[in-house]
Amino acid sequence: MITSPGNSKVKYIRRLQSERRFRQREQAFVVEGTRWVSELAGLVTTAPINLFYTETWAKVPEHAAILHQLNAATQPVTEAVMAAMSDTDTPQGVLAVLPHLPRPLPPSPNLLLILDGISTPGNLGTMLRTAAAAGVDGVLLGPGSVDVYNPKVVRASMGALLRLPIHSLDWDEMATVTKHMSVWAAVVDEDARAYTAVSWQSPSALMIGGEAWGISDEGRRLATGCITIPIQADTESLNAAIATGIILFEAVRQRTPTY
Amino acid sequence: MITSPGNSKVKYIRRLQSERRFRQREQAFVVEGTRWVSELAGLVTTAPINLFYTETWAKVPEHAAILHQLNAATQPVTEAVMAAMSDTDTPQGVLAVLPHLPRPLPPSPNLLLILDGISTPGNLGTMLRTAAAAGVDGVLLGPGSVDVYNPKVVRASMGALLRLPIHSLDWDEMATVTKHMSVWAAVVDEDARAYTAVSWQSPSALMIGGEAWGISDEGRRLATGCITIPIQADTESLNAAIATGIILFEAVRQRTPTY
Repeated sequence: MITSPGNSKVKYIRRLQSERRFRQREQAFVVEGTRWVSELAGLVTTAPINLFYTETWAKVPEHAAILHQLNAATQPVTEAVMAAMSDTDTPQGVLAVLPHLPRPLPPSPNLLLILDGISTPGNLGTMLRTAAAAGVDGVLLGPGSVDVYNPKVVRASMGALLRLPIHSLDWDEMATVTKHMSVWAAVVDEDARAYTAVSWQSPSALMIGGEAWGISDEGRRLATGCITIPIQADTESLNAAIATGIILFEAVRQRTPTY
Repeated sequence: MITSPGNSKVKYIRRLQSERRFRQREQAFVVEGTRWVSELAGLVTTAPINLFYTETWAKVPEHAAILHQLNAATQPVTEAVMAAMSDTDTPQGVLAVLPHLPRPLPPSPNLLLILDGISTPGNLGTMLRTAAAAGVDGVLLGPGSVDVYNPKVVRASMGALLRLPIHSLDWDEMATVTKHMSVWAAVVDEDARAYTAVSWQSPSALMIGGEAWGISDEGRRLATGCITIPIQADTESLNAAIATGIILFEAVRQRTPTY
């Protein structure tokens, strides 16, 4: 049992939680909470997982079952140590350290999400969760994005991080991956084509910009064209994660024959 | 200039920020930030507005123009007083106290959003912003909802609070308002009808439940039927605000002849 918040493992986890560069150097990140850990238990993976839990957490029979099912090095810690390790104000009593596990993109992706400069962690996490639910083949992150392994992104992504191929690419790499696809840049411009007026049935990528600045110049150069979601006059534009959901599920609608 | 955080106006505003009952008793709420205040300046209203600002904020010419345009009682405060009044960690330097201004529902609403037990303020605010952009005629809040005048809801709603008729109703009142409408309850159930398979062209209401518990028994009794957003197998269900956006904009799509 780890009892001291000064323990070197506690310090290691705190750095993984707070420092993007350290996560990059260690090629590791932290996931927290029962839901995340039970997601892990359902995955077939040979990746080394280090799991830390409080005795209160492990007393719940369902939690003990997760511990038993999971192929991980486990270690009990005190409540104080868990609080020191956790990124949240109210830790659930379990967290795990995982290696970065980037899944490869399929050779001919049919539907991709390109995120250009998303800087709000909660928004990025929600976009990943939404993209996984829509069944995209992968997510490409352009330069200037918040780190996908940021604890707030991990929290909001609800497991999508483990399921989706997510790759940080520069614009040249992005052009290579999307060579045979239509790339539609979502903009706030009432003169752009409606997102419902383009065909999503051929291989397509949706590009979404950050809330503050929208699509970058490089993003616009890569795009086949611009699309917009027509909204009621005199209202605020949509949140970028909401726009992502609306357009991706229009693509799903157009691709689903029974709809 | 108010210079003391102990000033009675500061205390009044702090209570409005933190106490739902106090907001209810006073029939007032607080909006913060330049964007919100410039929204107010664009509205024609005879409502009494009390505005507080720091001198740093008012020095910016665009801000001075807002102050000039706005029909409000204005009062400068020190940075420390603004910090005490504000609900945010990094106050922008301007906030206003407004009376509750419920807009009436139109007599024959064509598209409504019914929210059943939404307890996350940020999610509720995003739903209101999305509903305004989709052009709904109003939002009905069932019992158990977080207060729409909660500062986090106000912040995320981005002005939708001023534009939309938003009414807290009990289930009997809700039944009366939606008497001549189809009411579709969004559920997580792969056997329910797809949201794209029902017609949104006649008067319709979309009912969304809270993330934790979904639609209540009373909500289900009111509903004409259940609908769902089909998602990729083995992924987490969608965030409730994302689901709201996807379904409302499917209604807009079906109602827009040029799409």
